[in-house]
Amino acid sequence: MLQRIRVVLVNTSHPGNIGGAARAMKNMGLSRLVLVDPQDFPSAEAVARASGASDILDAAQVVATLEEALAGCSMVFGTSARERRIPWPLLDPRESASASIAQLQAGGEVALVFGREYAGLTNEELQRCHFHVHIPSDPEFSSLNLATAVQVLTYEVRMAWLAAEGLPTKLAKVETTAMLNAQPVTMDELEHFYGQLEATLIEIGFLDPLKPRHLMPRLRRLYGRCGISKLEMNILRGILTETQKTARGEPHKRREP
Amino acid sequence: MLQRIRVVLVNTSHPGNIGGAARAMKNMGLSRLVLVDPQDFPSAEAVARASGASDILDAAQVVATLEEALAGCSMVFGTSARERRIPWPLLDPRESASASIAQLQAGGEVALVFGREYAGLTNEELQRCHFHVHIPSDPEFSSLNLATAVQVLTYEVRMAWLAAEGLPTKLAKVETTAMLNAQPVTMDELEHFYGQLEATLIEIGFLDPLKPRHLMPRLRRLYGRCGISKLEMNILRGILTETQKTARGEPHKRREP
Repeated sequence: MLQRIRVVLVNTSHPGNIGGAARAMKNMGLSRLVLVDPQDFPSAEAVARASGASDILDAAQVVATLEEALAGCSMVFGTSARERRIPWPLLDPRESASASIAQLQAGGEVALVFGREYAGLTNEELQRCHFHVHIPSDPEFSSLNLATAVQVLTYEVRMAWLAAEGLPTKLAKVETTAMLNAQPVTMDELEHFYGQLEATLIEIGFLDPLKPRHLMPRLRRLYGRCGISKLEMNILRGILTETQKTARGEPHKRREP
Repeated sequence: MLQRIRVVLVNTSHPGNIGGAARAMKNMGLSRLVLVDPQDFPSAEAVARASGASDILDAAQVVATLEEALAGCSMVFGTSARERRIPWPLLDPRESASASIAQLQAGGEVALVFGREYAGLTNEELQRCHFHVHIPSDPEFSSLNLATAVQVLTYEVRMAWLAAEGLPTKLAKVETTAMLNAQPVTMDELEHFYGQLEATLIEIGFLDPLKPRHLMPRLRRLYGRCGISKLEMNILRGILTETQKTARGEPHKRREP
């Protein structure tokens, strides 16, 4: 299905960006690249930046006009970094991705159109698009690199496609709710705890430093996942301290009668 | 709030990627960059690729170890392109962004850690992270460029931040439902229609080609937004054809009595 989405780059100046765009597309499972009047293509720099996605460069279609690039498309999204005199239907990347997948499901062909590195798309080019897409960047510094802009839009397309296909976005699911509500302990405090934990486990003979196996990684995974609070950390370290005293035969601070 | 998220790049080989990461961060409103043992920094290539984000490079903290880079952090996310022997709590970029914002709201400090260009993070480095983040790339071609990976994660952070702050992700809202359910007409058919529409409007004296104003762009926006079906297109073009015949004084195919 994703092969019915084409990425269209208009009048690109830097061949490195064409290569970077090809790599980003291939990372996200897209394959169809159309170049409108590129300034320098084919190019060794494009191949270098494609980093293994040169099959997409080899298959890229080079055309003279945007009109040719869009032939057969039923929905066209044009990226735009700034507000236009005539406001156009504007989507964020997530909405454009949902609309793209819905369009593919209806049997259509989709184009994602990206403009020149410095000047973007012209008003005339933008008026050929059904929708404009704006990546919600900081208004003080809003212009993304061309290849990273391709990465963001194609990433959202892949996320929407995975959702539509009922495929997971990752290999495992973990509950994070407990962690998110936790009072935070800092990373260095956690490292001190791991250090004391390891020392303690050695002292009590549970951990053999010559045969550590995966004990510490497993414990790090456990505690790292828990979102330990400062209070809990004090408790855990108190337990370790008392355990170490016991192992060393030292007197306890407080003893139950 | 976003200044409490740091981006940590471990042992980066190519200074261009450091510059690209700085640009991506600044695009998304982040500012704190920490470099663990970079191979070539400071660097003119980093400044060139930063493309205006050199303030972030100037302020970047360079440290010798990941431990130093994570000092004071309460939640650490490590990017990982592959499955590990010991599975770790794994999030997709969207989930990691929600968790990051929740952690910032709880007063914590967050780190997003990115590994080497070819080898990623070591198992030991990954075990220092609370969560692993995997960008759901095509399993056949899963390794993203470093700067574009930074762009995806920081883009998701910004999307989550905008949502948490109740800020819009774009400047205008448009209903797309009607469009998404439409039977698609292709882009070239739409262009033929616009061509005939413009010709017709000139023929009937509604459009002055010497003073076109914004008439055609406005009409393009209108029809572009509507998700016209093939059937509707036939109707619209039929109307235009008949209008043109009328304007030219030609006989009509069918006339109502």
